[in-house]
Amino acid sequence: MPELDLTASSLDLTRTICDIPSVSGDEAGLADAIDAAIGSLGHLEVYRDGDTIVARTGLGRAQRVVIAGHIDTVPINQNLPTRDIHNDGEAYLWGRGTVDMKAGVAVQLKLAAELAEPRVDITWMWYDHEEVDADLNGLTRLARTRPDLFAGDFAILGEPSNGTVEGGCNGNLRAIVRTHGVRAHSARAWIGENAIHAAAPALGRLAAYRPRDIAVDGLVYREGMNAVRISGGVAGNVIPDLCEIEVNYRFAPSRTAEEAADHVRNVFEGFDVDVVDLAPGARPGLDAPIAQEFLAAVGGEPQPKYGWTDVARFSAMGVPAVNYGPGDPHLAHHDEERVPVAQIDAVEQGLRAWLNGG
Amino acid sequence: MPELDLTASSLDLTRTICDIPSVSGDEAGLADAIDAAIGSLGHLEVYRDGDTIVARTGLGRAQRVVIAGHIDTVPINQNLPTRDIHNDGEAYLWGRGTVDMKAGVAVQLKLAAELAEPRVDITWMWYDHEEVDADLNGLTRLARTRPDLFAGDFAILGEPSNGTVEGGCNGNLRAIVRTHGVRAHSARAWIGENAIHAAAPALGRLAAYRPRDIAVDGLVYREGMNAVRISGGVAGNVIPDLCEIEVNYRFAPSRTAEEAADHVRNVFEGFDVDVVDLAPGARPGLDAPIAQEFLAAVGGEPQPKYGWTDVARFSAMGVPAVNYGPGDPHLAHHDEERVPVAQIDAVEQGLRAWLNGG
Repeated sequence: MPELDLTASSLDLTRTICDIPSVSGDEAGLADAIDAAIGSLGHLEVYRDGDTIVARTGLGRAQRVVIAGHIDTVPINQNLPTRDIHNDGEAYLWGRGTVDMKAGVAVQLKLAAELAEPRVDITWMWYDHEEVDADLNGLTRLARTRPDLFAGDFAILGEPSNGTVEGGCNGNLRAIVRTHGVRAHSARAWIGENAIHAAAPALGRLAAYRPRDIAVDGLVYREGMNAVRISGGVAGNVIPDLCEIEVNYRFAPSRTAEEAADHVRNVFEGFDVDVVDLAPGARPGLDAPIAQEFLAAVGGEPQPKYGWTDVARFSAMGVPAVNYGPGDPHLAHHDEERVPVAQIDAVEQGLRAWLNGG
Repeated sequence: MPELDLTASSLDLTRTICDIPSVSGDEAGLADAIDAAIGSLGHLEVYRDGDTIVARTGLGRAQRVVIAGHIDTVPINQNLPTRDIHNDGEAYLWGRGTVDMKAGVAVQLKLAAELAEPRVDITWMWYDHEEVDADLNGLTRLARTRPDLFAGDFAILGEPSNGTVEGGCNGNLRAIVRTHGVRAHSARAWIGENAIHAAAPALGRLAAYRPRDIAVDGLVYREGMNAVRISGGVAGNVIPDLCEIEVNYRFAPSRTAEEAADHVRNVFEGFDVDVVDLAPGARPGLDAPIAQEFLAAVGGEPQPKYGWTDVARFSAMGVPAVNYGPGDPHLAHHDEERVPVAQIDAVEQGLRAWLNGG
């Protein structure tokens, strides 16, 4: 089993844990290494569930903060092992997981080892299966078996946010809009009804749709409603009897999940609409005093998070939560995924300053 | 090798040749059986090219008629061996190939054996690979190697036409209409351009399109322009950069192939249009005196043929050609393919009457 040196620099620790592949479903090796390194520290109480590891201080502080990061990645595509690269004078660590989100996890592991007496109690969570179905997510499992571990006054997810604080997240809905028809030989089309032609007004509504920009607690969330897939047709000489449009709606956290579903059904009134996936957004939660203190300590202007992350899970449990991690989210899942070394250092310093009461 | 008894009834002969499976590419067994049976007759000169068999009388008649049928079928789907069935008091032979088009071939084989001295010279053609790409069609090959064999004053294809004469055929065009965009994560859709949304006006034009009914030489051809397939999309969280609509245009034989392609390009003006398949139609050819004599002999009202058949090949060579065969074309390729026994008999009698000078 590879050993983790938690006294190494965050950069070196990022390199080490990126070079232990941990595509969703294959996190055991990395989880074992984290378990061994964290378990030997003495100042943290460790709980393991599958490949999710929870480590807590028990200092009796007035407040508790949950700091979490997933240890799985999307599939590797000839982008491991990591490499040090330079681009326009900037130093990067390149490779799968550097952005999403092992640099964030490395900073957390280093600070978990270093900060034996932080000013708040901390619950560290490193979890599996974030990049796949929500059913498989380690936090979904943990919320079922040990909901008490989620207790806290504030939560920080180390998801890539360019080293700035990104508050809340948009909700995420997927729906299938279906049109129906009647098959016939295309040489005698008038006997049938063309389901692809029937989809024309549905696509027309999407093309004409103007998404909203919505201010929530001072941050502006951009929405979006898009066809992400379309399919229909049987053969080159058959009038098609079914066309399916997969619609993805990203909605501001001012809307509940049910309101979002109603909105989609309204947009496609008269069509057969099947909502197949629905995750609520999260309000930014930056109005809580502890969040304001955090913002002041790490600096910078908070931004809205457009993509869905597990902050929504904490938000739904009543725990204000933000994203704060190194790396550009546009490069997550990208084959040229790479994290600026300076951002790893900046996030390490920001978190340390706040947790030390600086 | 199974033996064919060409003195059997057309019904029994249909049953026998249907029960020798001959899905496109696997016609050798049936071709061998036809070759052996026809080759032993004495009054026909036989030429074989692959699994296409040509048998000619050489009586020095003033006129020559080509009578042709393909011996392949679409794939079998648990509908062989054939069965005798009754439906609403009508007797049918059920099974793959009964309609398209072994009943027609059986009538031809029986008459080829029986009519040693018809009133016109006859070129019989039984050919392979009609149900697949035109490149593979036995007549395409024969037209390249032995174009002289196509010489004639009139041609009759035994394609299913409910025992009536169906003149000419519509042309057939397939085109891909593509829309383009720019990929982006669907959480930040404004960075991309949605190719599926861009397809909305193309589908709108198809939905609004009113196909023409065109009279050609006294028969009315119904046209049709239809999306037969649509596809687009990368993943559930990606703005799609490509959408492809496959359009099938069935056009009256009054339009040339190039005019049909121009029409499709006009309908989709402003879009990326790629014509991928284009077969001209065939005018009915019923104005030729020999065609009029044929019509008078077999009776009934001539109808237009909507689907494309090899009559278009003869038409393009300057030989007036019609479809005349037992079976309902709506049941061709159907899993419940079945031919009325009475139509087999009627076509046998109609062809015999005309060829005997009746």
